[in-house]
Amino acid sequence: MMRVSGGVTAAKGFTASGASAGIKRSRKPDMALVVSEAPAVCAATFTTNRVKAAPVLLSQRRVRTGLARAVFLNSGCANCMTGEPGLRDAVVLSRQAAKALGVPERQVLVASTGLIGRRLPVARMQRVMPSLVQRLSRSGHRRAAQGILTTDLKTKETAVAERIGGRVCHLGGMAKGAGMIAPSMATMLCVLTTDAAVDRGLLQDTLREAVERSFNRISVDGDMSTNDTVFLLANGRSGARVRRGTESARRFAAMAQAVTRHLASLLVKDGEGATRVATIGVLGARTGAEALACARRIASSSLVRTMLAGGEPNVGRIAAAAGASSARFRPEELEMHIQGHLVVRRGIAVRLGKTLARQLFAPREVAIQLHLHAGRGRAAVTACDLTAEYVRINANYQT
Amino acid sequence: MMRVSGGVTAAKGFTASGASAGIKRSRKPDMALVVSEAPAVCAATFTTNRVKAAPVLLSQRRVRTGLARAVFLNSGCANCMTGEPGLRDAVVLSRQAAKALGVPERQVLVASTGLIGRRLPVARMQRVMPSLVQRLSRSGHRRAAQGILTTDLKTKETAVAERIGGRVCHLGGMAKGAGMIAPSMATMLCVLTTDAAVDRGLLQDTLREAVERSFNRISVDGDMSTNDTVFLLANGRSGARVRRGTESARRFAAMAQAVTRHLASLLVKDGEGATRVATIGVLGARTGAEALACARRIASSSLVRTMLAGGEPNVGRIAAAAGASSARFRPEELEMHIQGHLVVRRGIAVRLGKTLARQLFAPREVAIQLHLHAGRGRAAVTACDLTAEYVRINANYQT
Repeated sequence: MMRVSGGVTAAKGFTASGASAGIKRSRKPDMALVVSEAPAVCAATFTTNRVKAAPVLLSQRRVRTGLARAVFLNSGCANCMTGEPGLRDAVVLSRQAAKALGVPERQVLVASTGLIGRRLPVARMQRVMPSLVQRLSRSGHRRAAQGILTTDLKTKETAVAERIGGRVCHLGGMAKGAGMIAPSMATMLCVLTTDAAVDRGLLQDTLREAVERSFNRISVDGDMSTNDTVFLLANGRSGARVRRGTESARRFAAMAQAVTRHLASLLVKDGEGATRVATIGVLGARTGAEALACARRIASSSLVRTMLAGGEPNVGRIAAAAGASSARFRPEELEMHIQGHLVVRRGIAVRLGKTLARQLFAPREVAIQLHLHAGRGRAAVTACDLTAEYVRINANYQT
Repeated sequence: MMRVSGGVTAAKGFTASGASAGIKRSRKPDMALVVSEAPAVCAATFTTNRVKAAPVLLSQRRVRTGLARAVFLNSGCANCMTGEPGLRDAVVLSRQAAKALGVPERQVLVASTGLIGRRLPVARMQRVMPSLVQRLSRSGHRRAAQGILTTDLKTKETAVAERIGGRVCHLGGMAKGAGMIAPSMATMLCVLTTDAAVDRGLLQDTLREAVERSFNRISVDGDMSTNDTVFLLANGRSGARVRRGTESARRFAAMAQAVTRHLASLLVKDGEGATRVATIGVLGARTGAEALACARRIASSSLVRTMLAGGEPNVGRIAAAAGASSARFRPEELEMHIQGHLVVRRGIAVRLGKTLARQLFAPREVAIQLHLHAGRGRAAVTACDLTAEYVRINANYQT
């Protein structure tokens, strides 16, 4: 497998574009379009929040048809808690895109991100739609990736190429993250495209598995969004056929995982206000589920995350979060390493000198590993720190 | 019932004192002693964290005897993750206190709060113990209340008097809070005393109920401490007898609830870095448990809490937290009021003008009420905001 450039248009037969409709006050790009030249098999995962945005409700319905030609996205406004009128707004915009592209309306998927509780400025967006369609190109991936950002500082794109059945195929994508990122669901917007030919069931299974191992293993602030959406479109243009239970399926799954994991790592590093990232590994739990629950509890602890922002480890906070999780273990057998250095032995904190303590937290990425000595379950979650900048961003976030 | 002064020594037959042993670098009081002149029936609740500090393990054992004469507490060091040596330290100090007081060692309860993973400076504490005992007095309640503070800005004391069976009796106490305050457990140190005569079973039931309705209804940061302890000592010195199933038990329970609720409200207002407090009421849930789960999820959301720190409500964040909780409801029926003002009607956000939005968040205490229209369950949780000051305190907290 090789990393390649091109993001969401790295795969053959996909084009993309981005534009500004002034939804964001900053006048930065806030609309994006991704189009497949041929009908693509589509898979998706959505937020598990009971409160779902209008575009989520609409896309959930449309994904059931199994085919998609385009994804229309916007940032700056989540189109959530807008009721039936909000749903109509999403329909109207997708209809306009469908007409301009000459594709069936039901094959246009939609996604929004931004402030909750505001209606989309539909008229302004409609005025920009023609130029969004006109500008579609292979090189539009970067502008499309810009069009979905909110408080993100950087665009998030990646793609890989791999040989399947003698043909080179591609899988790539773009994502946005920053805030309302919590484990246990796909908490962001992400569009993935591939030129492999994959049937719908296998495509959905591959996506679900990849999301579980990537986006569901990161935590920014423990909050769950109303708009989370991941799409994967497969148009078959490479001629590479992926079949369940064969080497081709294994390779394709590896591609999906490489891309989603890379995007997930970009998401957590660009978490709101983030200055340091920690990967929390839990070994020796009674089950994999308990290991994951333990790692997630640590990753979302405010005290662990402010500790990450500070200059020194505080093993008590990590152990207290582990002890408050549902993982069963004997505290007197707990072992912990930070950056490979033993910091808790048989439940007792090892006294670290000031110099060593600071050294352990000098890097921008640190590894924290707990061994519960209760079984063979293991899991890892990546978290970013909680800084005054996160508070500043979120205390003032209106529009 | 009347509010009276005197805190933990408002009840007859109790004395208290505080002193500094230099456990805290600040040289502020860091040791406290509360003593009953006669053996007192005792009740207690402790942290449910798997990782428990040495003083919790020791006090859990001693509380089983049902009688206590004294509580010895310290701040600045949690004596947690210190293994067998830490347990021995707690035993050694309680033994010294017992000898100086002339009471059985098993009747001395202990509690610690502060940094996890450090041993107590036993020798220094032993040198201060004699003067701590010498200074015991009815007026020592305030110094005792100072001796248990960590990052708290204010001491937390309260007491009430009530007539039971023709006799005036008292119930009062002191508490510390500030950080690692999460719902679902008694997350702080608290010593309560009363001169009512209450048998052990009823005392424990009354305490458990009072804690459930007070300390378990607040949230500062969602983190669960390893040291949480609430003691209630009843020495019977008022001559007022409390009997199960009678008016006396009802009055006594009301006293316990008044005191614990007042202390809980002081705790949340003095949460680390707190500038604004919100009481989140949930009505119309399918069950009381679902109402509570919903209120807690909102109260511990980072995005809701940074919103509280900012100047304007963002109903999307509140609704998103509700939707991510285990409470079952139809989003299109959600109704929300802030300060009595309708902000969400049938799941749709009501557009607020800038002026009104700012007015709603002008007070330092705000009321947020959700109606789920799914049943009759109701609950309320009080939370404080998440500020840059919280991050500053916790990024730098190393004694």
